[in-house]
Amino acid sequence: MSAPKAASKIKAYAKAGVDVDLGNRIKSGIHAKVSKTHGPEVLGKIGGFGGLFQPNFAGIEKPVLVSSIDGVGTKLKIAFALGRHDTVAQDLVNHCVDDIAVIGARPLFFLDYIGSGKLDPQAFHQMLDGFAKACQAAGCALIGGETAQMPGMYQPGEYDLAGVIVGVVDRAKMLDGSRISEGDVIIGLASNGLHTNGYSLARKVLLTGRGAYKLDDRVDGLKLTLGEELLRVHKNYQPLMASLPEGVLKGAAHITGGGLLDNLPRVLPKNLNARIDASSWTVPALFQLIQKRGKIDPLEMFQVFNMGIGMTLIVSPDDASAVVKATRGKTIGKIVPGSGVVQISSY
Amino acid sequence: MSAPKAASKIKAYAKAGVDVDLGNRIKSGIHAKVSKTHGPEVLGKIGGFGGLFQPNFAGIEKPVLVSSIDGVGTKLKIAFALGRHDTVAQDLVNHCVDDIAVIGARPLFFLDYIGSGKLDPQAFHQMLDGFAKACQAAGCALIGGETAQMPGMYQPGEYDLAGVIVGVVDRAKMLDGSRISEGDVIIGLASNGLHTNGYSLARKVLLTGRGAYKLDDRVDGLKLTLGEELLRVHKNYQPLMASLPEGVLKGAAHITGGGLLDNLPRVLPKNLNARIDASSWTVPALFQLIQKRGKIDPLEMFQVFNMGIGMTLIVSPDDASAVVKATRGKTIGKIVPGSGVVQISSY
Repeated sequence: MSAPKAASKIKAYAKAGVDVDLGNRIKSGIHAKVSKTHGPEVLGKIGGFGGLFQPNFAGIEKPVLVSSIDGVGTKLKIAFALGRHDTVAQDLVNHCVDDIAVIGARPLFFLDYIGSGKLDPQAFHQMLDGFAKACQAAGCALIGGETAQMPGMYQPGEYDLAGVIVGVVDRAKMLDGSRISEGDVIIGLASNGLHTNGYSLARKVLLTGRGAYKLDDRVDGLKLTLGEELLRVHKNYQPLMASLPEGVLKGAAHITGGGLLDNLPRVLPKNLNARIDASSWTVPALFQLIQKRGKIDPLEMFQVFNMGIGMTLIVSPDDASAVVKATRGKTIGKIVPGSGVVQISSY
Repeated sequence: MSAPKAASKIKAYAKAGVDVDLGNRIKSGIHAKVSKTHGPEVLGKIGGFGGLFQPNFAGIEKPVLVSSIDGVGTKLKIAFALGRHDTVAQDLVNHCVDDIAVIGARPLFFLDYIGSGKLDPQAFHQMLDGFAKACQAAGCALIGGETAQMPGMYQPGEYDLAGVIVGVVDRAKMLDGSRISEGDVIIGLASNGLHTNGYSLARKVLLTGRGAYKLDDRVDGLKLTLGEELLRVHKNYQPLMASLPEGVLKGAAHITGGGLLDNLPRVLPKNLNARIDASSWTVPALFQLIQKRGKIDPLEMFQVFNMGIGMTLIVSPDDASAVVKATRGKTIGKIVPGSGVVQISSY
């Protein structure tokens, strides 16, 4: 029997909800989009079983690979509602980049997973555009992905996203918070919205119940529509952090789920506290709106949302003003004796 | 205001469906389970933002990192129905290991993503056990994971899994199929079931419609119940492949979605075909059952299912008998002049 043309016989499978032809058609055009993220370290994909990356570790004495896997959470529901699928892909890349940036790592490569009931070609290509755009901006190669069609697993038009990043840092330069000492300064870098955390609560508070907002509403204090504000892309802070002189950063915390309250302790020595002065920056209107409408305890707000601070940097007092200037950050607190926890005052 | 105890104020978030306390409780005990997969290359997790792996590339001239991301597909639906969540986690690890083994890579580390509506502690710990067990067996460190609670995204009791593996191969030893030549022998290694592909079709054919089977049915020709057969863990072929003398393997193809028909061409030079003699092994009863009950075209069967062959190795005729013996494989075909496609005869 001569070999069939691929996909020519796939009939029963299509009836069971898995459209291999569609999958193949959708995937055409991937190469052009991802190849612009590829530098000389990416080797030609051999058969496509695995992504190939030959790292250039020149100048790195003891390379440590730093990896992080994440999702976008129910921010996806906003993307579904608005039919906008490129920004959540960017969110995912940037979230991952920031997760390893706090250890001092620069990104090497990224892989994505899209789980869906049935592939929507337009959404898929938007996602791919988003992954490629954010990877290119991050200097990170997009070297692999899996797009799963799982009939009956997801609601029509919905999907889940996961992504993983692998980066590198020289072992001696890893940021582990051990150099943090009393009197150090905590500098906050502004977020541009909820980033990727707290959406289940935000959606419940803003979009359900009596007087619920609609995503295309314009709300006092917000520049864009509510939907556009909720979909703002998670910031990538890594280039800014990498631009600081070597050794200046003593620690950094990416403010994700758990907010300032739970994320700063991840880098604090056990005998020190982070004292945050919440009056040192203006909590953006979107967070205030959620807090007011949801009648949410202020402390819970600080444990669910980033409250306007997406990244925190810990530096010596001597370096603080230069770092504030270079990063356009704000001094939001200092390191004091304690037990490894966060104190929030003036809120 | 003094710092609150973590999670003490999380009330509104819990009402919105995200139970941070539950998440934290579930995650206790993770360390003990994953640490048994950790060798000296894994550095202590710093703050948990990223997994840290300092690779030992001794003896590798030009290390190439090989990575693959994957899911389990609707095999998950069988796991949900049987309330068995460790085996799908093992499936995911082994699938990833095999994907990079065909390039000649050995695994370094693995990260998992669990997307769910609400976390089920028992299911979570079963998954963790499965990931750890398979990683340990594969000599692979489980260094990271994300467990997402996304109210309204998944049906109750359901979840999706994604996993990514990063491995290494010396550039000069990468298997790219370029050494494959006319007359080479194709050796098939037995699968133990559907592995991780074709479940949407298998479930439709076996479990729906008139006379549908139940998962606890015993069916002629199958050793275990139908559900147990469908849940058999995807085999990890990497240790067997790595045990072969250096240079013996000219190419390898992991038989996943697309079957022999679509996966073997991924390593074939453009001027050669793979001629498979389907009478050279007995297609296991489970595949025969699906084909018969679903009245599925034989060629489609070979393009959706592995049909009893989970991995194919391509070796020179001189090495074939030794490889067959060492791997307990079967000679299932040979390399002939052609155009980079698969011919299946005698089926």
